[in-house]
Amino acid sequence: MRHKSAYRIGIVGATGAVGREILSVIERRNFPECYVKLMASSRSAGTMIPFKGLSLRVQEVTALSFDDLDIVFFSAGASRSREFVPAALEAGAVVIDNSSAFRMEPDVPLVVPSVNDHALTNHRGLIANPNCCAAILVTALAPLHREAQINRIVISTYQSASGAGAQAMVELEDQTRAVLAGEAPVPKVFPHPIAFNLFSHNTPVGPDGLNEEERKLIQETRKILELADVPISATCIRVPVMRAHSESVTIGLQKPLSVERARQTLASAPGVKVVDDVEKNHFPMPLEASGDLDIHVGRLREDNIFGTPGLSLFISGDQLLRGAAWNAVEIAEKLISRN
Amino acid sequence: MRHKSAYRIGIVGATGAVGREILSVIERRNFPECYVKLMASSRSAGTMIPFKGLSLRVQEVTALSFDDLDIVFFSAGASRSREFVPAALEAGAVVIDNSSAFRMEPDVPLVVPSVNDHALTNHRGLIANPNCCAAILVTALAPLHREAQINRIVISTYQSASGAGAQAMVELEDQTRAVLAGEAPVPKVFPHPIAFNLFSHNTPVGPDGLNEEERKLIQETRKILELADVPISATCIRVPVMRAHSESVTIGLQKPLSVERARQTLASAPGVKVVDDVEKNHFPMPLEASGDLDIHVGRLREDNIFGTPGLSLFISGDQLLRGAAWNAVEIAEKLISRN
Repeated sequence: MRHKSAYRIGIVGATGAVGREILSVIERRNFPECYVKLMASSRSAGTMIPFKGLSLRVQEVTALSFDDLDIVFFSAGASRSREFVPAALEAGAVVIDNSSAFRMEPDVPLVVPSVNDHALTNHRGLIANPNCCAAILVTALAPLHREAQINRIVISTYQSASGAGAQAMVELEDQTRAVLAGEAPVPKVFPHPIAFNLFSHNTPVGPDGLNEEERKLIQETRKILELADVPISATCIRVPVMRAHSESVTIGLQKPLSVERARQTLASAPGVKVVDDVEKNHFPMPLEASGDLDIHVGRLREDNIFGTPGLSLFISGDQLLRGAAWNAVEIAEKLISRN
Repeated sequence: MRHKSAYRIGIVGATGAVGREILSVIERRNFPECYVKLMASSRSAGTMIPFKGLSLRVQEVTALSFDDLDIVFFSAGASRSREFVPAALEAGAVVIDNSSAFRMEPDVPLVVPSVNDHALTNHRGLIANPNCCAAILVTALAPLHREAQINRIVISTYQSASGAGAQAMVELEDQTRAVLAGEAPVPKVFPHPIAFNLFSHNTPVGPDGLNEEERKLIQETRKILELADVPISATCIRVPVMRAHSESVTIGLQKPLSVERARQTLASAPGVKVVDDVEKNHFPMPLEASGDLDIHVGRLREDNIFGTPGLSLFISGDQLLRGAAWNAVEIAEKLISRN
């Protein structure tokens, strides 16, 4: 990608929850001068979306959509990425793909900028944005890993509706209204009621007993932290929260790490806010993490369940921002600043 | 306690969430013939509560309330139990205490009937009902422990509003209505907003980094399962669910235990329903567990995170029933049937 006075940015999936958030982040951030082209499926083409005082018309995405674009964000699901990413790369654009389609390909960097932006070096045009739970997790764990070398991870998630897209957020709201009115909840987006309920993540469970979300979380965490062999146990649960994901995490460490030292390490880490007020019983909460670019980390305590040094912690992070949109835009900013 | 043709039952805390549930369970179950005396603080005295076609008047509890009662259920908090349980025992009643006041006393049996009713033998008049999370956990773990000996437990909870009492359930509903109407949530019972949010359990955090709920869960699980030395890591989280608690659990085992064998073991265990339909992605959910006397257990999968044989599982259980009221009434039934 050559240096330019104004970059041409494309967003595929512009009408989705993450696509809209990418546009919003570009608008709010001090992002380099750019033109923006919004794309979506034929179903959503024609939608008008406001941007910097203009009203942009969403265009149908085709294999011919990518000429003259410098950077294209894909956020329209794995099958849409598989269909159109090759055309975008062919047209010479750098692609930042938010789907799972290419994340585990060995020559595709999987990047959380504050954690492993070195992986951007020598990219071949395609950079993958991690699964939202993995992005949130590694942001909190990377500083602790650098300090004391993580050797085991157990994680249980509390994942918000937004992880399943804009329609799922509407479903949580509509269903909750219905239940409060004494009506039965009618699941459409999710297979089970989400109002005042929770359930195992609704991706298929494989022969190993893991669902796809858990497998992504495990594999991507290993790839980003370069911990190929570390044992990870994951349980992914959907909860009736709107926007931010939370994670209960226990880690084993090769070296002792005091709570005080862990807190200091996290406090000085990029993208992390320590929320750990024991006196006031104030710890990370999805409502407070929503809208924040930082991951909230707290409930830090020593935990020797593995028979080694270790820690337990609780994390909340806005999955639309750090988990998806802000992470993708930050990758673009890093690429541009390297020019 | 002598055999009688009709037992005189007392309920202290009769207007609370658990107290009302105890009365409801006695009414619905084939409980032995009994007279019921309802008691509460002076604030709630005078409340009328329906029972078997009658309307019972709630009386103020005093040290003189317990003459002629055979069994007294206490469910009015630890300080109320500390104040009045001695008087009830002095008056000759058998006390089944739902509070944490006496649970860890060495000579007080802590009982989940399907798990350790042998602990009722030679009781001294006072029997403790466990913390709701512990009761739900041990019901699922006891059969697996008998089969393959548990040696480590990691647990993250998803605890419903009902665990904090009837007022907390009202707060979840009222706050949710407010948020849907565009108003700010106003926490009263809980220290943080509960509508569309979740937070670390609001009991004080001690120097060891555990909050009181986590400490109860750990200590009581060890006492009931007679696993004095087993390492347990617990994280207790409150979620916006009305009535049933859920738990994400990973256990280490001394002997290998296949998923198939674990499923069979659980299917034939008392108080457990296996909800583990991988094809249909149907696993335990609090909404389905609500109102059920059985604990729902599923998402069974092998997990070798400890470097030993092990399993992960997900549990949902009605905390008002198995966690509290039904467990307490079942203790009473066992005591009566032993006469």
